[in-house]
Amino acid sequence: MAEDQPLASPERRLSELGIELPPVRAPVGSFVNSVRSGNLVFVTAPPIRADGSPILGRFGEDLDADAGYAAARETALYALAILREELGSLDRVRRLVKVNGVLNATPDFTAHTQVVNGASDLFLEVFGEPGRHARLAVGYSSLPWNICLEIELIAEARD
Amino acid sequence: MAEDQPLASPERRLSELGIELPPVRAPVGSFVNSVRSGNLVFVTAPPIRADGSPILGRFGEDLDADAGYAAARETALYALAILREELGSLDRVRRLVKVNGVLNATPDFTAHTQVVNGASDLFLEVFGEPGRHARLAVGYSSLPWNICLEIELIAEARD
Amino acid sequence: MAEDQPLASPERRLSELGIELPPVRAPVGSFVNSVRSGNLVFVTAPPIRADGSPILGRFGEDLDADAGYAAARETALYALAILREELGSLDRVRRLVKVNGVLNATPDFTAHTQVVNGASDLFLEVFGEPGRHARLAVGYSSLPWNICLEIELIAEARD
Repeated sequence: MAEDQPLASPERRLSELGIELPPVRAPVGSFVNSVRSGNLVFVTAPPIRADGSPILGRFGEDLDADAGYAAARETALYALAILREELGSLDRVRRLVKVNGVLNATPDFTAHTQVVNGASDLFLEVFGEPGRHARLAVGYSSLPWNICLEIELIAEARD
Repeated sequence: MAEDQPLASPERRLSELGIELPPVRAPVGSFVNSVRSGNLVFVTAPPIRADGSPILGRFGEDLDADAGYAAARETALYALAILREELGSLDRVRRLVKVNGVLNATPDFTAHTQVVNGASDLFLEVFGEPGRHARLAVGYSSLPWNICLEIELIAEARD
Repeated sequence: MAEDQPLASPERRLSELGIELPPVRAPVGSFVNSVRSGNLVFVTAPPIRADGSPILGRFGEDLDADAGYAAARETALYALAILREELGSLDRVRRLVKVNGVLNATPDFTAHTQVVNGASDLFLEVFGEPGRHARLAVGYSSLPWNICLEIELIAEARD
């Protein structure tokens, strides 16, 4: 099974791709960006650009699928930055488990899958086969401060 | 506790009920239908009929609670087909843990519970008491391709 | 790490705060309020007051952020009541892992964070640092019976 094969280094893969992860900011409130319980790490990433500004707007109104693909990829980078902070290194990830693509979307929007592929494709590039995950990609009525999406990630850490 | 009692065979129970699980189709994209991490299996099932066609529409607009109960039951069968593929046999399920009933619904729809009972009742028929699960049944603004619902399942596998 | 420090007793903390948890009611249907799998406990709490009545309404229409903070706190108490029932005592909680703040909200509502802080702040009061959790706070198109919110909780139990 994929998860039992030796995993190429995700950190080296990031370097080869020329990707630098953005700085992680502490959330404002009585919560944190991630929690590890046993080997599972639970991450919730808002759409924060490297300069700290949020990506705002609603799919089907302000943003189309192409803008969404880019936003999901950028948010996935932020999720990886949180994951690295939690584990010390992405090389400690054994595999990804679950991704939730949480979209701020109008009732008539239907391209959720294309948007969240921006995150899923990045995870596959960085982790290879162990980056494949179960996934939900859906539209919400509203998100905090009108941010456009959030990427939730459950990862499995090595022992 | 229920989960420590010998479990009647869910596979035999399916046969007794005359239920045949539908074929599983690979999702299109960088993700998979299910992932196992430790003893937990994470499944996301779209509403795919045995012939491969999706069940479309919005609750409160195109579909009522009765149509929803039937759609949730059919999608739960698809979730079980994914789970069997992941574990080799449903007899390797120790218990169900969590079900998310993800509905494409108008703001004035309120019968989410009746709809998702179509999945929960099936799980109880097939697994008996170990089929009981914590549950969320809620309405989303929009789902991919206007599918009517998705059933997410977390199951615990035997060692 | 916080979760390895000796934990002050959450049960004693509740007493000090003068908080009495509400009675737990069994859900109507083929599901349960919580399930434990390994050390993880999955809880879904509807907004049920101590007298058993539900808190109804939609954020951005019937309810504002202040009413929401109070409702989220009350629902978090109900989540703790379920968690105590599952584990026998809140002193068996090692740490909180994940909170989902599930809001019934209009498309133009943006104060989800303020609402769900009502739950997060309570968890921090009761558990201290091990009460910090990863979190999602988002708006749904509709919830069952027009309830205003639900609080989902994943907690880690001591061995």
